Amino acid sequence: MHKNQKKGGNVLEKYIYGVDLGGTSVKMGLFDSEGEMLEKWEIVTRKENSGELILPDIAASINEKSKEKGIGTEDVLGIGIGVPGPITEDGRVLKCANLGWGIFSVADKLRELTGVEKVKVGNDANVAALGEQWRGGGRGFKSIVMVTLGTGVGGGVIIDGKILTGKNGAAGEIGHLTVNPKETRLTCGCGKKGCLEQYSSASGLMRIAAEKLKETDRPSTLRQCEQVTGREIFREYEAGDELATEAVEEFAWYLGIGLSHVAAVVDPDAFVIGGGISKNGPSVTEVIKKEYEKNVMFALQNKEFRLAELGNDAGMYGAVRMVLN
Amino acid sequence: MHKNQKKGGNVLEKYIYGVDLGGTSVKMGLFDSEGEMLEKWEIVTRKENSGELILPDIAASINEKSKEKGIGTEDVLGIGIGVPGPITEDGRVLKCANLGWGIFSVADKLRELTGVEKVKVGNDANVAALGEQWRGGGRGFKSIVMVTLGTGVGGGVIIDGKILTGKNGAAGEIGHLTVNPKETRLTCGCGKKGCLEQYSSASGLMRIAAEKLKETDRPSTLRQCEQVTGREIFREYEAGDELATEAVEEFAWYLGIGLSHVAAVVDPDAFVIGGGISKNGPSVTEVIKKEYEKNVMFALQNKEFRLAELGNDAGMYGAVRMVLN
Repeated sequence: MHKNQKKGGNVLEKYIYGVDLGGTSVKMGLFDSEGEMLEKWEIVTRKENSGELILPDIAASINEKSKEKGIGTEDVLGIGIGVPGPITEDGRVLKCANLGWGIFSVADKLRELTGVEKVKVGNDANVAALGEQWRGGGRGFKSIVMVTLGTGVGGGVIIDGKILTGKNGAAGEIGHLTVNPKETRLTCGCGKKGCLEQYSSASGLMRIAAEKLKETDRPSTLRQCEQVTGREIFREYEAGDELATEAVEEFAWYLGIGLSHVAAVVDPDAFVIGGGISKNGPSVTEVIKKEYEKNVMFALQNKEFRLAELGNDAGMYGAVRMVLN
Repeated sequence: MHKNQKKGGNVLEKYIYGVDLGGTSVKMGLFDSEGEMLEKWEIVTRKENSGELILPDIAASINEKSKEKGIGTEDVLGIGIGVPGPITEDGRVLKCANLGWGIFSVADKLRELTGVEKVKVGNDANVAALGEQWRGGGRGFKSIVMVTLGTGVGGGVIIDGKILTGKNGAAGEIGHLTVNPKETRLTCGCGKKGCLEQYSSASGLMRIAAEKLKETDRPSTLRQCEQVTGREIFREYEAGDELATEAVEEFAWYLGIGLSHVAAVVDPDAFVIGGGISKNGPSVTEVIKKEYEKNVMFALQNKEFRLAELGNDAGMYGAVRMVLN
């Protein structure tokens, strides 16, 4: 019997809900007060009507789960939630175009809907970083910077086991480091030119490779691939294909210089690399570290580079950690 | 009568010593427990024999001052000291070439020499940043980044009123941000090429102007100056001289992009600009802010840029603040 289950009708432990709100689905987890995951499930993110159903749906799912498990509101230590937008330290969202949300207090709203007093809200990338630092690839380090290489480039800065939020919730926005001030062509979603995420995201890497394939008729094993995604590019890079190597090195060069900037500001214990690209394994951290080391002063050399380990669960773990902090 | 003076033979208040250790002189201050400066003086930094006299000299000066004022060791709340080298959180210096020091605990040594239990040690740039955040240009902001534009470019990151030290004491080393990865010519003292301090220090600005004067025979009021230092360059820039304007804009362009990197990582409340260059007044912060705004995403725009206010006293104030924190 798990220590959290009822024994003679008495709940022995307290519970925490960890929630990771995404644009398509909401990942939800029930945890014990030690941070062990007891159960996880998903619900759909209903974005209609400016996203006004989202928090009521989450609250209903939590209330239902508590009812099912016989958990009273007084036995819930807290709810943590990661939200895909800028969040202030007191739990207000400052606009979240992706969900249709304007400016309001997510913490107050969720408190009201569930009756749970302690509600902690963070930006989803920051919350995932906290999860990885606590239970994932950053385990054992107090201060890490997590870099998520997916469609875009996300970041989260954890200092002494806590999220660094920043004045406008924009700390760790490393995807928008201007790594190419001379860029004239590529405009980022943020409106600027030369942002890191234009080069070092999965889509950036695909674009770099596609352009190299198109510009010349140099032989490359990539020409035999049905699709040329990050997976194929890294596979052919590992196999020694010259064009794939150039593409990966260009992708890593921008990331290396971006992370050298990050290090000069916060000097973290380690970098944790996550997101779709990180699924290609140790060759990802190796090539990034190689480019990083070229651009940092001696005091910042020999940093640890780790792969993320929690995948899609990182956000739920981080959300729980916010409640426990 | 000051509230800290003896009244009927009893010391009413506790005292703190704030020390700013520089390569030429040591600035020392006696403060009350509210952080008011009661007295300040300087002693010479004796660097002979690998700097082994420095801490005994500081301790002797503190002990003498306490004796003079009738302050017992038990009435000293603590000693804070800023040191020009990388310092770990527990007060060890990790080599300080400038003073001839290797690796040892400054905190332990000073504790032993003075009998004062609480000794706090920080990197001098970080400690000055803390002083400015507490009592200077950063007053009223919780999180600031201080930028010192002197012979080099120094930095200090203050988050929620505390120094961000980093794993190797290298957080805030913004003078070594690689702002020009394409640089082939200028090698920084750190061994890298393209460091911010090659362009945006007082010496960087002087070099930029000197090169522009030498490369062409364009007219410039700078040609009438006996010396062309930062002071003259900013004066002629304010007067509208074209060549001086180009020099200042180049200096500020690199600084603007460097600070845009800093903002994307920590999203501070404000930047505080100090060092010799900052003595040229508001036109310094204005031109830096202008270049900064061009290179940051919307969420990081409209940052506060303030001039430092404490000058050479910043380090002493910050040292005292470390003791009070």
